Amino acid sequence: MRILGIDPGIAIVGFGFIDKQGSRCIPVQYGCIQTEKNTPEEERLLHVYEGIGQLMDKYKPDAVALEKLFFNRNVTTAMSVSQARGVLVLAAIQRGLPIGEYTPMQVKQAIVGYGKAEKKQVQEMTKIFLKLQAVPKPDDVADALAIAICHAHSSTLNSKINEVLRS
Amino acid sequence: MRILGIDPGIAIVGFGFIDKQGSRCIPVQYGCIQTEKNTPEEERLLHVYEGIGQLMDKYKPDAVALEKLFFNRNVTTAMSVSQARGVLVLAAIQRGLPIGEYTPMQVKQAIVGYGKAEKKQVQEMTKIFLKLQAVPKPDDVADALAIAICHAHSSTLNSKINEVLRS
Repeated sequence: MRILGIDPGIAIVGFGFIDKQGSRCIPVQYGCIQTEKNTPEEERLLHVYEGIGQLMDKYKPDAVALEKLFFNRNVTTAMSVSQARGVLVLAAIQRGLPIGEYTPMQVKQAIVGYGKAEKKQVQEMTKIFLKLQAVPKPDDVADALAIAICHAHSSTLNSKINEVLRS
Repeated sequence: MRILGIDPGIAIVGFGFIDKQGSRCIPVQYGCIQTEKNTPEEERLLHVYEGIGQLMDKYKPDAVALEKLFFNRNVTTAMSVSQARGVLVLAAIQRGLPIGEYTPMQVKQAIVGYGKAEKKQVQEMTKIFLKLQAVPKPDDVADALAIAICHAHSSTLNSKINEVLRS
């Protein structure tokens, strides 16, 4: 199963494709879509939408995982990121891809085993899980990969639960 | 010039097409796109995106006007509306339509001539401007028409300024 993890944003969208093979996660492709600061918002949204669509069509994921947004400080940022999130979700649903959403706490729990882990710990564990040489940069890419791993773990757990329920 | 005014939302998207003929505004079509509360968010976003796209293709506006979002209370609502706004803006930019954005205060100023006017006053003036029998319901539809009128006024003002600058 191939999973696309996405860290939504309007300036930088982190993405990470991983293949789940048994209990292992193998990185396929990762990076980020960036938009120019001085470009009109609508063009940035189009760039994000077209960029993620091209990646989806090229790497053909079976599922998409996104972080659930929680904001309590800057509402303007929250709204800007949410607009981008809207077009990212749209790109997924237009391709019939199931979407998993996880809170930052769920991601931390899945990767480090502790919901209040530090960002650095999550990044280090992501690197180890995927046998990478270094933590991918910028942070948005590492975050996207962590969300993809979180989804892989959750789907393993869900299929185990379903097995037990069926037996 | 045909203008599409939009009041963004995830449950209800108000829309109003008006034709600007000289200093007059003539209503063409108005109403709302509604999504089911118990439907997954991604499907609601798809419904909004496809709905507005079909309307754009049918009524072929020359410009789109949206309210600038300002929220200070419910961040969850703000994020939900922003996601919908993202796919609405995307539908416009994909068709090469210019997008005008107005604050609620600008809309009130344009319609009533007073930036702190009551919602009821804006609705009444919208009805009078467009020679409607009654204020359109729900409020989202009246709001969308008000935003379209605001854009019509602004573009008149802009073209007058350009005329003066050119002369």
